[in-house]
Amino acid sequence: MQNSVIKFNDPPSITSSASVVGRMEKEGPLGEIFDFCDPSDRFGRDTWERSESEMQRLALNFALSKNKLSPDDIDAVFAGDLINQCTSSTYGLCEYDIPYFGIYGACSTVAEGLIAASMSIDGGYFRRCAAVTSSHNCTAERQFRAPLEHGSNRTPTSQWTVTGAAAFILSDEAGKIRITEALVGRTVDSGLSDISNMGAAMAPAAIDTLTRYFRTSGASPEDLDAVVTGDLGNEGHSIMLELLQENDIDISANALDCGLMIFDRGRQDVHAGGSGCGCGASVLASHFLPKIISGEIRDMLFIATGALMSPLTIQQGDTIPAIAHLIRLSGKDLEI
Amino acid sequence: MQNSVIKFNDPPSITSSASVVGRMEKEGPLGEIFDFCDPSDRFGRDTWERSESEMQRLALNFALSKNKLSPDDIDAVFAGDLINQCTSSTYGLCEYDIPYFGIYGACSTVAEGLIAASMSIDGGYFRRCAAVTSSHNCTAERQFRAPLEHGSNRTPTSQWTVTGAAAFILSDEAGKIRITEALVGRTVDSGLSDISNMGAAMAPAAIDTLTRYFRTSGASPEDLDAVVTGDLGNEGHSIMLELLQENDIDISANALDCGLMIFDRGRQDVHAGGSGCGCGASVLASHFLPKIISGEIRDMLFIATGALMSPLTIQQGDTIPAIAHLIRLSGKDLEI
Repeated sequence: MQNSVIKFNDPPSITSSASVVGRMEKEGPLGEIFDFCDPSDRFGRDTWERSESEMQRLALNFALSKNKLSPDDIDAVFAGDLINQCTSSTYGLCEYDIPYFGIYGACSTVAEGLIAASMSIDGGYFRRCAAVTSSHNCTAERQFRAPLEHGSNRTPTSQWTVTGAAAFILSDEAGKIRITEALVGRTVDSGLSDISNMGAAMAPAAIDTLTRYFRTSGASPEDLDAVVTGDLGNEGHSIMLELLQENDIDISANALDCGLMIFDRGRQDVHAGGSGCGCGASVLASHFLPKIISGEIRDMLFIATGALMSPLTIQQGDTIPAIAHLIRLSGKDLEI
Repeated sequence: MQNSVIKFNDPPSITSSASVVGRMEKEGPLGEIFDFCDPSDRFGRDTWERSESEMQRLALNFALSKNKLSPDDIDAVFAGDLINQCTSSTYGLCEYDIPYFGIYGACSTVAEGLIAASMSIDGGYFRRCAAVTSSHNCTAERQFRAPLEHGSNRTPTSQWTVTGAAAFILSDEAGKIRITEALVGRTVDSGLSDISNMGAAMAPAAIDTLTRYFRTSGASPEDLDAVVTGDLGNEGHSIMLELLQENDIDISANALDCGLMIFDRGRQDVHAGGSGCGCGASVLASHFLPKIISGEIRDMLFIATGALMSPLTIQQGDTIPAIAHLIRLSGKDLEI
């Protein structure tokens, strides 16, 4: 049973979602779809960490408003982020007074939260939950690499941490978007240690999860309108496609990566693409979910990958474990 | 429903548990009960962070061995710790290849993991899960306060981070220890900012959770053989008892705190008591659960509290949000 795919009995609905982004994301190819942007990236706060917390607060507020819900209507929130001790989430969401599950999956956090929320709703413990996550370029770069003021050169494989937050409301009520299946990731360490090449470190985790999914779920890539990864970027995405083919899995016809979609790599200086918890989360919330509602996408996989190192483990010479959590999103069964 | 207590339909069993501790814990009043101790606190590794990871690896290994299980028998592990990016857990458990949920609740992590694992088993998604957590005095003090080599003076309200790890195996099979109820904590920020007084910062969260529990569960303190907090220490525990009485809840007859039990405050220089993820977790694993099996305790609450600040939020002048997750453990219904 260990590797088997979770198939929800009464698939939970995502009844609303919202995204909050910064300037670079607004100027990117998807700029028009996000719910809210502050071009200063500050969101009215005086430290970058407080700015990121405010983004989570705003994202959940927007998501609640779209469903005309108050915080009291939410039985539990599942939230996490990249910052030490996940403080963007705890400080950003504290005022809502909602029972709180702190989670940590680095950039895979959005999928981990959606899986945990789905289990707790389908299992009958909660009626409505929220999943929230964020990343901010200025907090993440300072913590994981160097403060922006250093002006450090970035290598070609490096990705640009997205300034973005997203919130999702999940419910046991009928809705147009259902989470029908899930597969929990395993930590995979392929021996890489370059913190400027997250894509290569995370690709093996995506391969592990997708291989387990297609070998045990009964689904094949042709059944899906899209197979969407969170933030592998140019380097990681091409590694994943190539190595999946060695496992006789070809998803190249409908594979997309949010890290390659959120920025224009020709026009914006982001090197291998976008990354961060907020990358996949904001593109899922504001690009893919509306396409499921409109019927343009009827069935898709969303695989969020995360690199689980810390600056200290890298300084101590350790390699980078990664993880990839998968959910299947469907708009096909509106009649259920 | 938001504040209501989860009552499991078919309460999951804890079929085994194991603990791994350091020298100070071995020399304390409970020293004989732990499964494994390395008096050097190093566990054969060359950095404190690797030592802590090794403690998690050992704890899960011991817990599996007691049940004659292999890692393949475990459908998912829920793990977290205090260290940045929860690397004690990810690096320590990586080799097991078990589907992995990263969680973060600071010192409340053990209860959060037991709740999440219980929901996923009772909900029918997994048959067997593990919950694992740890703390190490040398990693935590360096990260949150000052490296031990500084020899900083400690204030009277400060607690001593426990060097301890614990692992629990949960199952849908019948067992002598059941998790019958759970209540998910809310983040509570009472405006305190002294990182040498975790007990006072966490007490309001314990009060919030216990008040919600006794007001909505139908249980009263007299129904329970013990009401056990994780690591409030001398300061936090007395604040909790006093303020709960203002809510007309008197648990003083059977209230215990693992932070006050694991060390002898008269003989060991730990000031207000023990703290850390490994404090409540190791005492629960090796002291309380055996007492449920022996019948000495038939019904108890375990409330693990966590302080959710980071060194950076404190440096930036923010206060300390805290959380408390509750589980009810019962040995009464062995016949189920």
